Amino acid sequence: MSERKLKLALSVYGVGGPGHHSLWKDPRIPKNASIDIDWYIARAKQAEAALFDALFIVDSQFINATYPAHYLNRLEPLTLLSAVATHTKHLGLIGTASSTYNSPFNLARRFGSLDQISHGRAGWNVVTSFDTGTSRNYGLEEHLDYATRYGRALEAVQVIRGLWDSYEDDAFVADVENDLFLDPTKLHALNHRGENFRVDGPLNLSRSPQGQPVIFQAGISEEGKTLAGEVAEGIYAPGEDFESAVEYYADVKGRLAAHGRHWDDLVILVGATPVIASTDAEAHDRAREIYESDNDFDRKLAAFGRGFGAYDFSQHDLDAPFPDVAALADKGGRTRSQAIIERAREEKLTLRQVVEESAQYKPSPFIGSAQTVADTIEKWFLGRAADGLNLRARTPDDIDSFTEEVLPILQKRGLFRTEYEAETLRGNLGLKVPENRYAVDTDASALVEA
Amino acid sequence: MSERKLKLALSVYGVGGPGHHSLWKDPRIPKNASIDIDWYIARAKQAEAALFDALFIVDSQFINATYPAHYLNRLEPLTLLSAVATHTKHLGLIGTASSTYNSPFNLARRFGSLDQISHGRAGWNVVTSFDTGTSRNYGLEEHLDYATRYGRALEAVQVIRGLWDSYEDDAFVADVENDLFLDPTKLHALNHRGENFRVDGPLNLSRSPQGQPVIFQAGISEEGKTLAGEVAEGIYAPGEDFESAVEYYADVKGRLAAHGRHWDDLVILVGATPVIASTDAEAHDRAREIYESDNDFDRKLAAFGRGFGAYDFSQHDLDAPFPDVAALADKGGRTRSQAIIERAREEKLTLRQVVEESAQYKPSPFIGSAQTVADTIEKWFLGRAADGLNLRARTPDDIDSFTEEVLPILQKRGLFRTEYEAETLRGNLGLKVPENRYAVDTDASALVEA
Ligand SMILES: Cc1cc2nc3c(=O)[nH]c(=O)nc-3n(C[C@H](O)[C@H](O)[C@H](O)COP(=O)(O)O)c2cc1C
Ligand SMILES: Cc1cc2nc3c(=O)[nH]c(=O)nc-3n(C[C@H](O)[C@H](O)[C@H](O)COP(=O)(O)O)c2cc1C
Repeated sequence: MSERKLKLALSVYGVGGPGHHSLWKDPRIPKNASIDIDWYIARAKQAEAALFDALFIVDSQFINATYPAHYLNRLEPLTLLSAVATHTKHLGLIGTASSTYNSPFNLARRFGSLDQISHGRAGWNVVTSFDTGTSRNYGLEEHLDYATRYGRALEAVQVIRGLWDSYEDDAFVADVENDLFLDPTKLHALNHRGENFRVDGPLNLSRSPQGQPVIFQAGISEEGKTLAGEVAEGIYAPGEDFESAVEYYADVKGRLAAHGRHWDDLVILVGATPVIASTDAEAHDRAREIYESDNDFDRKLAAFGRGFGAYDFSQHDLDAPFPDVAALADKGGRTRSQAIIERAREEKLTLRQVVEESAQYKPSPFIGSAQTVADTIEKWFLGRAADGLNLRARTPDDIDSFTEEVLPILQKRGLFRTEYEAETLRGNLGLKVPENRYAVDTDASALVEA
Repeated sequence: MSERKLKLALSVYGVGGPGHHSLWKDPRIPKNASIDIDWYIARAKQAEAALFDALFIVDSQFINATYPAHYLNRLEPLTLLSAVATHTKHLGLIGTASSTYNSPFNLARRFGSLDQISHGRAGWNVVTSFDTGTSRNYGLEEHLDYATRYGRALEAVQVIRGLWDSYEDDAFVADVENDLFLDPTKLHALNHRGENFRVDGPLNLSRSPQGQPVIFQAGISEEGKTLAGEVAEGIYAPGEDFESAVEYYADVKGRLAAHGRHWDDLVILVGATPVIASTDAEAHDRAREIYESDNDFDRKLAAFGRGFGAYDFSQHDLDAPFPDVAALADKGGRTRSQAIIERAREEKLTLRQVVEESAQYKPSPFIGSAQTVADTIEKWFLGRAADGLNLRARTPDDIDSFTEEVLPILQKRGLFRTEYEAETLRGNLGLKVPENRYAVDTDASALVEA
C-alpha cells in the first residue's frame, strides 16, 4: 500500500481533444448540456459517488461562430459551481477564472463565497486567458503581453490571498452578553500597493474550514511554470506523453524549494481523455473513430487559428508557404504557436500541410482495456509524471466505465482512495490549511513578549 | 377584484432600518446567518411558499469594524442566488451589483448565467455603490463622482442588454443530420464603443425563457431617477412615508413616456419593515423596543458616518457646531447628506444633536395589527405610492406572521395572487419579454423585402 494517493478531477463537456467539435451530436449529451445546470449537477454526483477530488470547470470569454458547441454557449464557472455546491458534500469545486480580465477584489469575493457555500471545497484555476480576443470584451484592443499577464497573475494571487485572510479564524466572538459580535483587533486591512493593483481591503468575508480556496494554475510557458513554482497548489497540465510529462513534473516541482515549498505542496494533474473498451485494439479503433468524426478541414483550419488569436487563416492560399504570423504567436499560447512556425519554416511547409499535421491523429496515452489504462495510470503516477488526472470525460458513460472498470483496479493496488479523507478540497488533496498571516504574526509577537 | 396585483420581494438579513445593528443577537438568527447558504435557501423557500415574486439581495463591497454584523461577513450576491436557484422553482432572484466597480462583460455573463440556471428568474439591481470606500478596493483613491457613476450605469445597462441579445432565440438549430449546431447568421457581435466602455462581444451565452434578466435600480437622486426612467423595469425605493412615496412614484413613472415606455413597464417596490402584533398598540411598543435595542451612541455615530463615506466623526468635538463635511457629502448618498448639512447650518446644531436627530425614532408605516398593516398596504398600492413592497423582514418569524396574517387579507381583497402566474420573474412581475434586437431587425427587413 502506498502512502501517496492518486488525485482525480473531472472535467466535463468543455474538454478539448479529438472529436470535441462533434461531441454535441452524441445522443447521450443533451443539446443544451453546456447551459443545463441539472446536467452538471448529475455529473458532479457521478464524480462524488466515485470519490473524485473535484469537478473542474474550464473557461473562455471569447467566441466567434467557428468555436465548438460547448464554447458557444456556456455558464460562467463560479455561478455554475455555486449551484452544484449545495448538491454535493465532498467534491471539490474548481473554477477557471482569468487573472488578466478580472479585479482581484471581485475574484476574492466570488471564490471566497463559493468556499463558504461549499464549506471549504473551492479552488481557483488561475489562467491568463488563452483567447486573445477576450481583450476586446474588456476594453483593450490587444491582449496584454506575457510579462504583463503573468505579472498581474502573481500579484492578483498575492492580493487575493491577502484579502482571504482579512478575518482571523476567531474574529467573530458573537458574545451576546457583552454585546460584541466582532473582535475588531482580528479584522485586518491589506493596504496593498503594487505594480498592477491597489487594493485596501479588508474583504467582507471570513475564511472557510479549509482556510483559503486552493490555487490551481494552467499555463506551460516559462512564465507559467515560474508562477506555479511560487504560488500554485495544483496544476492542470497537458498529458501528451509520459516523457514530456515527467520532464514537466520535475521542472515545476524543482522550482518549489526556492520558495520554501515542498513537493507535497503542489498536486500536478494531467489532462487525460480515456477511451476504454474490452480490448486494447477495440479501444484504439474507437479512439480513431472519435477522431475521424471530427475530421472536417474547415473546422481544423478554424481550430488551428484559435492558437493564433482566432486568426482567420482561410484568407490565405492553402497551398502557398505557411504565412508569416509571427506577430500573432506571442499572445495566446506561445509555446505551441512558436514551435509550429519554426517547423513550418524549417520544413518549408504549406499552410495546408501545417494544419493537417497539427490536427493529425495523436492517440491519447489513456486508451485501452481497463487493465491497460490502469497500468498506464500507475506508471504515470509512480513514475512521477503526475500526481493525478484531470479526467476529460466525453460522456456520462465514459465517467461510468472509468469509475466502474479502472478505479477498482487502482483501489485494489492501494493507489486510489476507498473513502474520502475529508470534507474539504484541501483535505482530500492532502494540502495543508494555510495559517492566517495575521494570526501567525500575533503568535510570533506573543512569543517575543513572553 | 383588481387587475393590477401587488408585487412582493423579500429582503433578508441585510435589511437596514431600526435595530439592525442588534439583529445578530436575536436567538432566532444563527450567528453565521449572513454566510450560511442553508439559511438563505430556507428563507427563499418560505418566500416561495408564500408566493413572493422574488428574493432580493442587497450588497456592499466596503467595510470597517464599525459596520453591522451582516455587512461584515457576507456572501457575494450572484454566488448566493445561484445556490438558491436550484432549490426554488418560481421565486425571482434579484442581486445587487455595482455598475461602478464591475466590467459589463463580467456582469452580463454572471447575471446571464443565473438567468439560465434559474430558467428565467434573474434580476439585476443596478447600484452605483453607496459605500465610497469601495473605490479603494478597486484601485481608485476617490469614489467616482455622480455624473461619471450614473453615466457608467446607463452605458453599462445598455452594453449588457446588447450582450444578452448576442444569440437570437432560434440560433441553436442543433441539426445532427446536417451537422449544424449554430446558425451563424443568428450570432451577433455588439461592437460597442462608448464613453466609458469598449465591448466587442458577442457574449458566449444564450437568452433564458424570460429573454433577459429584469433590470432593477436603487438610487433616489435626480440622476438615479433619470436612469430609472430610461432603463429600469423595477425600483427598490425608500418607503419612508406615504406622501413622499406618492410623489416619487409619479415623478419616476412620469419619466417613462419620454422613452416610449408605459407605467406598466416599471414596477416600484418600496422598502417596508413590518412589525405585526395582535393590536396596533402592541406592535408600536414592539417597534420602539426594537429601536431601543440599538440605541448606543457610538454606533449611531459610526452609522451616521457611513452616509459620508464611512467618515469617522468621533474625531470631532461632539458638542461643537457640526463640522464642515460638505466635501464628503457629494459621494455616497448625496440627497440625505446634503439635507443634513443644510439643516445643521440653518439650525446651528452640534454634531451630537445632528446625530441624535438623524437616528431618532421614526416608526415605519407598516406597524400595527395584521388588519392595519393590510389596510396600509392597500392604501399605498391603490394610492400609487407603490406597486409592491420589498419586505425587509428581520427574522423568519416576521416572514411567517406577514405571510400567515397579512397576505390572506390582501388575497381576500383580490390584491395579491393566490398562485404564481408564471415560472419567470418577468412573468410574475407582469413585465414583457424584450424582443431580441436583432430578431426585430430581421423581421423588419423581411417585411421590406416582401
Ligand atoms: C491544460 C491547460 C488548460 C488550460 N485551460 C485554460 C482555460 O480553461 N481557459 C483559459 O483561458 N486558458 C487556459 N489555459 C491557457 C493558459 O492559461 C494560458 O493563458 C495560455 O496557455 C498561455 O500561457 P502559457 O504559454 O503559459 O501556456 C490552459 C492551459 C493548459 C496547459
Ligand atoms: C432603497 C435603496 C436601496 C439601496 N441599496 C443599495 C445597495 O444594496 N448597495 C449599494 O451599494 N447601494 C444601494 N443603494 C444606493 C444607491 O445605489 C446609490 O449609490 C446611492 O444611494 C447614491 O445615489 P442616489 O443619490 O441616487 O441615491 C440603495 C439606495 C436605495 C434608495
